[in-house]
Amino acid sequence: MPLDEEKNGACDRSIYVNNPHLDSLTDDILYHFNLGTSTHNLAAMFGDVKFVCVGGSPWRMKSFTEYIAKELGLSDPNAEYPNICAGTDRYAMYKVGPVLSVSHGMGIPSISIMLHELIKLLYHARCTDVTVVRIGTSGGIGLKPGTVLITKQSVDSVFQPRLEQIILGKPVVRSTELDGELAEELLQCGKDLAEFDTVVGNTMCTLDFYEGQARLDGAFCSYSEEDKQRYLAEAYAAGVRNIEMESSVFAAMCKLSNLRAAVVCVTLLDRLKGDQLTSSHDVLNNYQQRPQALVGHYIKKKLKASKKS
Amino acid sequence: MPLDEEKNGACDRSIYVNNPHLDSLTDDILYHFNLGTSTHNLAAMFGDVKFVCVGGSPWRMKSFTEYIAKELGLSDPNAEYPNICAGTDRYAMYKVGPVLSVSHGMGIPSISIMLHELIKLLYHARCTDVTVVRIGTSGGIGLKPGTVLITKQSVDSVFQPRLEQIILGKPVVRSTELDGELAEELLQCGKDLAEFDTVVGNTMCTLDFYEGQARLDGAFCSYSEEDKQRYLAEAYAAGVRNIEMESSVFAAMCKLSNLRAAVVCVTLLDRLKGDQLTSSHDVLNNYQQRPQALVGHYIKKKLKASKKS
Repeated sequence: MPLDEEKNGACDRSIYVNNPHLDSLTDDILYHFNLGTSTHNLAAMFGDVKFVCVGGSPWRMKSFTEYIAKELGLSDPNAEYPNICAGTDRYAMYKVGPVLSVSHGMGIPSISIMLHELIKLLYHARCTDVTVVRIGTSGGIGLKPGTVLITKQSVDSVFQPRLEQIILGKPVVRSTELDGELAEELLQCGKDLAEFDTVVGNTMCTLDFYEGQARLDGAFCSYSEEDKQRYLAEAYAAGVRNIEMESSVFAAMCKLSNLRAAVVCVTLLDRLKGDQLTSSHDVLNNYQQRPQALVGHYIKKKLKASKKS
Repeated sequence: MPLDEEKNGACDRSIYVNNPHLDSLTDDILYHFNLGTSTHNLAAMFGDVKFVCVGGSPWRMKSFTEYIAKELGLSDPNAEYPNICAGTDRYAMYKVGPVLSVSHGMGIPSISIMLHELIKLLYHARCTDVTVVRIGTSGGIGLKPGTVLITKQSVDSVFQPRLEQIILGKPVVRSTELDGELAEELLQCGKDLAEFDTVVGNTMCTLDFYEGQARLDGAFCSYSEEDKQRYLAEAYAAGVRNIEMESSVFAAMCKLSNLRAAVVCVTLLDRLKGDQLTSSHDVLNNYQQRPQALVGHYIKKKLKASKKS
C-alpha cells in the first residue's frame, strides 16, 4: 500500500489505496454501495473484474451491461442483471463476466464518492490489471453533434490539466493525466467500427452545467452571447473539444490508485451553435449508445487478445 | 426580471430569474427534468406550488410525498404518485397539493443543475411566495447522532459563509445567507414535536465526502487522526455542527431567486467519534425520517394559519 502518490509502476498492476488507516478497520463499510467487508465476500464477488465502465445514469449502466453481455456471448436470454447495490439508490452496479458497470450521478463530488468506494472495493477484492472507462455525454465545441471524443487531457476552467481539491481546508493540486496508450487504442476501435466520428481532444471539466459552461439558458446569466463565444473560442484554442462535469476527479483518482483510465463521451450538441438540447429523444438516444459501442468493441478485442496469448 | 443580484424585496414574493436571454427562447427545455415550456403547461401543472422539498435520494423524496399527503389529509389510499420526471433518471419529482418534492443527487454540481431548472420551472409557472427546504443527512460534530440541525449559515472549508463559483473562467463569490426567520420557525416546530433533538448551527459544505471532510476511511488519506481532530475542532469553534455537500449552492441560488430557503439535516453519526456509518439500517432509517417529520409539521402549521387568515 504505497503512500507515494506518484508511484505508478508499469509492471505492477495491482490497485493502490493510499491510506495507512484502512488496515486497522475490522470492517470497511462501503456505505453508498450498501456493501462491506464483513457482510460481503468482495473477493468472491469481484475478484475477476478486469474492466469497469462508469457513467452518470443508472439506467444507462444497466443497458450497457445488457449490451456487453450480448457482445461477449455471455448473455442468457432469461438472465436478469440484478443491481448489486440494491438497498440504496445512491448508485447502481451491475456485473457480467469480467465487466463491472457502475453509475456515478452528476458532478465531481458525486463521482468522487463512488470512486473512493470503488477503489476500496477493487482493493479488498484483490483485483489486478483493471481498466476503467467513463462513458458519458458532453457538450461539444466545434464538433458535429454525435461525435465521440476520447479525452487527451482533462482541463479546468482556465484550461490547465489539474484538479484542485480541498483537504483539511487547504488546496491540494492533483494531476489529471490519463493513459495515452489506452486513448490511442480506443481511437483505433473507433476506426475499426467506422460507424461514427471518433476523435481525441481535451475535455474541460466544470462544477456547473449552466454558468460554469457559459450557457445563456440557466436561471441566472450575467454575460452576453459575445462573452460566451469569446470564452468558448479560448477553450477551443487550448485544444478543448468538449465539456462535461466528472473527468478531472476521475482522471486524478484513477492515477493515484494505479488504474488505467479513459474518458469517452459523445457530444450531444455543438455549443458554438446553441445551449439547449433540441434534438429528438431518438437522436439523443442513438448518440448515447456510441460510447458504449466503442468501449464494448475495445473490451471484446482485449479479451480475444488475452485468450490468444 | 431584475438583474440586480441583491434585489430581494420583502413584499414581492415572485420568483426571479436573473437572465435577460430567457425571454428570447421560444421553447425552454428543462432537459434534466424532461419537461419544457412548449411540451408542458407548467402553469397548470405547478402554479399552485407553495412548498418545495428537496433531498438527495429519489426514494426518500417519494416517501416524503406519501408522508406529506397523509399529514395534509390529501392522501387517497389508491393513489399512486407518479414521477413527474419519468423519461429521465437524472432527478425524480413528485407533487401533492401545494407541495413539490424533488431529488437532487449528491454534491454541489448535481443540486445546482436541479436548482437552475427548478427556478426556471417555478418562474415559468408564475409561482409566488414559495418556500424551499432541503431535507438531508449529514455528519455531526459534537452532536448526538439523530439530532436534527437547522442551518444558520452554510460555510466553506475555511468556515466562511460564501460560495465561490467559476463563471467564464473567473471566480465569483456569492453569499450563502439563509432566511433567519424561517430557521426560527422550524426550530419552534422541533419544540412542538418534541420527538428528537433539534438545534440551530452552522453547516460546512464540502466538495468531497472523504478527504474533504477529514475522514480517515477513504481510498486516500495523507493526514493523521490528530490532524483530523484538530480540523474538526477548528470547525466546531467556528460554530459548525454538521457537514454535508449541497447547502452552500442551495442557499446562494435560492437567495438570488427570491426563494425563502432552509436546510434541515439529521446527523447520522458524530464525526468526533468516528467516520464509518456503523448504526443499523433501521436506526439510520429512523434518523432519516426526522427532517421530513419536522418539515411536514411546518407545512401543516403554515397551511392551517393561511386558511385562518
